This record gives sequence, structure tokens and C-alpha cells, in this order.
Amino acid sequence: MKIGFVGVGIMGRPMAGHLQAGGHDLLLVQHRSPLPSELTEGGARACATAAELAGQADVVILMLPDTGDVEQALFAADGVAAGLKPGSLVIDMSSIDPIATRDFAARIEGIGAAYLDAPVSGGEVGARNAALTIMVGGSEEAFERARPLFERLGKNITLIGPAGSGQIAKVANQIIVALNIEAVAEALLFASKAGADPARVRAALMGGFAASRVLEVHGQRMIDRTFDPGFRIRLHQKDLGLALGAARTLGLALPNTANAQQLFSSCVAHGGADWDHSAMVRSLEIMGAATIA
Amino acid sequence: MKIGFVGVGIMGRPMAGHLQAGGHDLLLVQHRSPLPSELTEGGARACATAAELAGQADVVILMLPDTGDVEQALFAADGVAAGLKPGSLVIDMSSIDPIATRDFAARIEGIGAAYLDAPVSGGEVGARNAALTIMVGGSEEAFERARPLFERLGKNITLIGPAGSGQIAKVANQIIVALNIEAVAEALLFASKAGADPARVRAALMGGFAASRVLEVHGQRMIDRTFDPGFRIRLHQKDLGLALGAARTLGLALPNTANAQQLFSSCVAHGGADWDHSAMVRSLEIMGAATIA
Repeated sequence: MKIGFVGVGIMGRPMAGHLQAGGHDLLLVQHRSPLPSELTEGGARACATAAELAGQADVVILMLPDTGDVEQALFAADGVAAGLKPGSLVIDMSSIDPIATRDFAARIEGIGAAYLDAPVSGGEVGARNAALTIMVGGSEEAFERARPLFERLGKNITLIGPAGSGQIAKVANQIIVALNIEAVAEALLFASKAGADPARVRAALMGGFAASRVLEVHGQRMIDRTFDPGFRIRLHQKDLGLALGAARTLGLALPNTANAQQLFSSCVAHGGADWDHSAMVRSLEIMGAATIA
Repeated sequence: MKIGFVGVGIMGRPMAGHLQAGGHDLLLVQHRSPLPSELTEGGARACATAAELAGQADVVILMLPDTGDVEQALFAADGVAAGLKPGSLVIDMSSIDPIATRDFAARIEGIGAAYLDAPVSGGEVGARNAALTIMVGGSEEAFERARPLFERLGKNITLIGPAGSGQIAKVANQIIVALNIEAVAEALLFASKAGADPARVRAALMGGFAASRVLEVHGQRMIDRTFDPGFRIRLHQKDLGLALGAARTLGLALPNTANAQQLFSSCVAHGGADWDHSAMVRSLEIMGAATIA
């Protein structure tokens, strides 16, 4: 299959590599910086514009930083939509605004192509190991067309519902992860400041209703003080920004998400944009003049 | 062993029954209401006061609603401390203030007896099935003395650290459970209002970093709209009250715990004091004029 891959950054680069290793022909967009050598040596061809790439591809995959980047790549004068062949399939694997996504899907479908939103979780490690979780929004038919590609990239692949549903699930995921980190941070800092050993508290709580992946993984990081990413605070801030922006549009109050975003901002104020998101605990530590110890 | 059991309510009654079934002699305090018939028929003897009970018991166990009840039972003129034999052991299995607990332990140890704080989680069902999680604070020696009794009552039994540590762990547990409920509520309500199927979102998220016992159990309750307790909001409010009170004493900010407590209060305002704590989502639904559906 001819796959146009737009966005070969930290995530997209290994993902494109897995598709190439699966026997697909890759098309990339040539920018000022050189294309990844392992992809061009593997036969990937460079196109001058996204429109040119779309004109030759059966499937166009996007893996870009944010909503505006996807809009630009799709709908600029020399963007994907300008060259897209009828009957082709656009898959946006970026994590972007769910409400804008519905609009993008409608516009792409309006010119005779199919559209899936398929954001991922699992980060750089998941991308490299082809172990991403993929949350998909779109039609059953488009999902079945894309499934063999998704299976090259990830393991936990779910069609959530119609267009936008993948992005909605991803936002929901990021809300829970942020708030579970905040919960573990409040609890372990409380335990520590009150005079108990946070490691023993964590171990005791893992057996009951407080058990979570975040208590297991990020709780341990808070105790060990290992805040190397992992998942960077500035990326989680972007995701909570999507949550709070969409919630405002929908007229929905997300009070603890809003607060977690402020705690991330406080981390950034202390130089922590690139700390692991479990370092959210540092904002509470600063507020309470205390440290988990 | 002669066990004085103070507080044979919803939790204490089945717990005392398990100890009696284990061959121990029970002593109870006679109040106006009749004592549980299965305990008196099993040979439990009634004492006029807690002091009289303590004078005959090797171990005194308390299972009472709140900090003031425990203080009264221990230190009133006719309380446990007034009759306690030197060398005996007091075990407070109530969920009460961790900081007051350290004071109670010091005062009991001052009169030559040992003290453990050993709050539980697992609720009525855990008490009936002898499947409680027991979090213990106190000396290793006292813990080993009490262990055979704990093993009649529960399964996940941990010595956390010195006096007060059991109560600290219990408070930490209740912080995480409340905030994980709030997290799942924000995420599933967001998903639903944004137009995705919350059941599919929950299922997709269970495989990743958002996974938790609360997403599994309470998330399903939010989707099914089954808010029968479970664990009653008014009891979780009491526990968050302990968290916020102790945090204030310690000079610690717990912003999301404080907010969760307000959401519980909003549930109570709508008649929900006896709803299951997963019904915290209803406060967010009221704020957002939306329902998970």
C-alpha cells in the first residue's frame, strides 16, 4: 500500500518505520531539515508538498503536535485536501481537539475520502516497540481498512465510535491519568508529612480500592524522586488544554482537571516543563513546604 | 483470650462474631439497646461500663464512629483507661483522626498498656466475610500479639509504622479513592457530553495508564446508574473531613480533596447522604446540566 506519512517526529518516525518494515511504500513531505535516513534508505520518497503526497497515496497518516498543525496540513492551499484522491483514507493519529476533529472529518468526507481519528497512548517507548494503545473514531468500514496498519503500530486497538470518538477517549484518558497522579500526590504527601512511611502506605494501598496503575508506577517515582520523562509535563498540559477547551465549548465544569492544570503550570514556573508528569507532586510540595520522604 | 469489644454496630458486630467463633471470650458494654443476640447466645458477657470491661479483658478492641467517640470510650470517668489492666492491649479499629490517635496511644502507654491503631477498609461486606484490609500503627511487638485476632477479621494486614500510621494510611486510602472517583466522573462525563459512548471509553481505558479499581468498579456504576451503597457518601465525607482537618493542622494544602468534599456536600444537598460514593458524579452532572448516558 502507498502510505503518505505527515509528521515523522519523535512519535511518527518509528511508526513510519514499522509501516515500511511491513512492506508498505512510504511517501514523506520534504521540509528544510533532512528526512530520517533509515526511512529514505528504506525507499521512502520525498514529495514537495502534502498535496503532492496525497495525490499519490492510498492512505495519508498524520502525526502532528496540535490542532492547528493538523488543520494546516489538511487544509492549507498545498495541503492534503488539495491533492487527495477520491476513495483514499486519511488517518489522524495526532492528539488534538475532538470538536475540531469532527469538522475536519466532515470536510474530508465531503471531498470523497474517508477519515479516522486515531490518537495513541504509550509515548515514545510504545511507538518504538509497536505497543501503542490506539483509540479510533470513524466508520466501521474505514476502521477495518486501517486495522492492518494499526496492528503494525500497537496492541490495544479499539473503535470507540463515530468521528471524534478516538480524540474524546484520548482526552478522557489524559484527564484520568492527570487526576490519578494528583490523587496519589496528595495522599503520599499527606502520609509523609503526617509521619508515616510513604513506601509502606503505597504498598498497603495497592491491595484495595485505591489500587491503580498510577499508584503503582507514578507513586513509586514520587517516592524514588525519579522525575525523568516518561511523559513530559508540557505535553500533558497540552492535553489538559484540549480537555478544558472542549469542556468550555460544551458547557461542562471539570474542576479538578482545571486545578491539575494549574499545578502543572506551577511546575513549569519552577523549570519543570520537561519533568515527568508524576512531578506534579512538586507543586503540592511547594505549597505545603514539605517533601515526600 | 478475653476480648472486650466496644462498638458492636454495623462493622463491629460481625467482627466480634468472628472473634467469638475463633474461641475467644467476649465482653461487651451494656447500653440501653439490647446487645446482639447471636453474641450473647454465644456466651458474650455484658459489663456496665467500659472501665469494668477493661478490668477483665486481655485485649480491648474499639470500633466506633468518630474521634470523639473513641476519646470518650477511652478517657471518660468510667472509660477503658479507668479500668485497664497493666500489660493489656488496646486496639482501635475505628477510622479516626491520625494526630489525635498519637495522643491517645501515648496516654494509654503511659498507664502501662499497649496501643495499636488498626483501621480497616472493605466495608460491611468485608466485615461480614472476614475480608477486611487492616492498616496498623504501633509497635512490632503489639502487632505480633494482635496478629492472630486480625487474621480472624481480614486478609490484607500491614504494619505501616509507629502509632498513628494505620490511621494515616487509611486517610491516604480515602483521599485516593475519592479523587479517583472524581477523576473517572470528570472523564466519563466529558466523554458522554462530547458524544462518545462512555462504556466503550471505559473499556478502552482499562488497558492503559488510566486503569484503576475505581475505573473498573465505580466507573461501571456511573454508567449503570446504580448508586446503592456500597460505601455511603456521608461516611466518605467523614473520612475527607479527617484528611482536611489533619492537613490543616499539618499546614498542608490538599486542593482536590477539598474540592471532592464540596462535591459530596452538593450530593447531600440533593438528598444523597446515603448514595454510594460513586454518585459524586451527580454533582458534576448538576453543574454541567448533563448526564452520563
